[in-house]
Amino acid sequence: RHYRDRKGLYFVEGVRSFVTAVEQGCQVDNLLYSERLLTSPPARKLVRNLKRAGVPFTRLTPEEFRSISRSERASGVGIILRQHILKLEEVAPGKYPCWIALDRVRAPGNFGTLVRSSAAVGAAGFLLLGDGIDPFDPAVVRASMGAFFRQTFVRTTPQKLSEWAGQHGLLIVGASPDGPLAYDRVAYTRPTVLVLGEERGGLTAEQRALCHKLVRIPMVAESDSLNLGVAGSLLMYQVLRAIRPPENEEHGIRLLC
Amino acid sequence: RHYRDRKGLYFVEGVRSFVTAVEQGCQVDNLLYSERLLTSPPARKLVRNLKRAGVPFTRLTPEEFRSISRSERASGVGIILRQHILKLEEVAPGKYPCWIALDRVRAPGNFGTLVRSSAAVGAAGFLLLGDGIDPFDPAVVRASMGAFFRQTFVRTTPQKLSEWAGQHGLLIVGASPDGPLAYDRVAYTRPTVLVLGEERGGLTAEQRALCHKLVRIPMVAESDSLNLGVAGSLLMYQVLRAIRPPENEEHGIRLLC
Repeated sequence: RHYRDRKGLYFVEGVRSFVTAVEQGCQVDNLLYSERLLTSPPARKLVRNLKRAGVPFTRLTPEEFRSISRSERASGVGIILRQHILKLEEVAPGKYPCWIALDRVRAPGNFGTLVRSSAAVGAAGFLLLGDGIDPFDPAVVRASMGAFFRQTFVRTTPQKLSEWAGQHGLLIVGASPDGPLAYDRVAYTRPTVLVLGEERGGLTAEQRALCHKLVRIPMVAESDSLNLGVAGSLLMYQVLRAIRPPENEEHGIRLLC
Repeated sequence: RHYRDRKGLYFVEGVRSFVTAVEQGCQVDNLLYSERLLTSPPARKLVRNLKRAGVPFTRLTPEEFRSISRSERASGVGIILRQHILKLEEVAPGKYPCWIALDRVRAPGNFGTLVRSSAAVGAAGFLLLGDGIDPFDPAVVRASMGAFFRQTFVRTTPQKLSEWAGQHGLLIVGASPDGPLAYDRVAYTRPTVLVLGEERGGLTAEQRALCHKLVRIPMVAESDSLNLGVAGSLLMYQVLRAIRPPENEEHGIRLLC
């Protein structure tokens, strides 16, 4: 992470991530590929197009590619991208139903799962409180299954988030086992910031202080927690439900299968 | 897995899993612990109780324990348990709101996440179709965070499941992107079997043929999938919603925080 942040770059590999990143217009600093390993025809075509467009590239032997790959089955294509992380002043909450605010996450895979769900419900992206989370961890990008490139990442502080939410009339809802309301019995009538705590510790005191409401996810008595990716996704889908039309007309708001 | 199945045993490590397994009355074949590594007072007490009750045990040095542990921070306690897997004839659907039927899962962690959510909603357990899934994989038990020991696992076939569901009047609902109904616009008025497909391939033709209804989870147009643990959990919570009382009286059906 230290190296990634100092350079302001990050590495992404695999056909799906590669194609999605390029389609979403990410700025490619360098393209690395192995002619022999890369067999997918659309990915090969995209490699040719990028080279023609003047993107710097590095051709690797299969052995060289495998030596930089973290994947068990090296796909043969990777890109170095510029880290794109915004400040709160640069974003408007806009028409999105929700944002997710996090302070820390233990498992990068859980964060990637949240990114995947967030893109699926049409949420705007992630408000990262402090420096605890590195969204550019390869395990995050991988678990997001391409959704990473369709989400906005903002680095901010609880203080600034609170002011910004106030200015724009956003509802801030935190998830906690001691929340007085069930998550599905709150009216998400305004665009919402969902605040999620770390896997073991839950919400910090600072995160709690931000929230207008605390909600719990009901569980049978013997259970005390859910996977973080699951808990966050249940909340996101609940916010989505509030803005979906009552009948089967999801297509009207760009909702498909 | 071959070794595990031949012996009919499996190994579980870590304080949380150990305590939960014993509390749930699992039959311990052997107790392995390292006096030096195991610092948790309640776990140490439980070790003493089990030894006093005549459970066979093996004392290990920290080095020995680490050599059998898959965990980065070896907890110092593990147990060998008898595999407990039922046939469909041995279970009655009973009063549980739902069962989950699976054929294959790629990532054991996803299966463990489903087990955790299933326990949280008070579902009965898992109907494993064929031999593709090994529920006793240590990664499954670990990801379930103790919930594994509160769930029932049944090995069966699609054919038998279909007959059993018919006899007991269960609704069988499969999740698929091409499902004609949104998952939250179906009335889960009867106890339900949720059928989930494998991460990439989705439902098999055999699984589809089982289902009375196919449901989709709505997504914005650019997204095409969710994490399997998330998708299954959204469905489980939707079934739970149907049987929860309309007001804030969850305690009546053993639902807490």
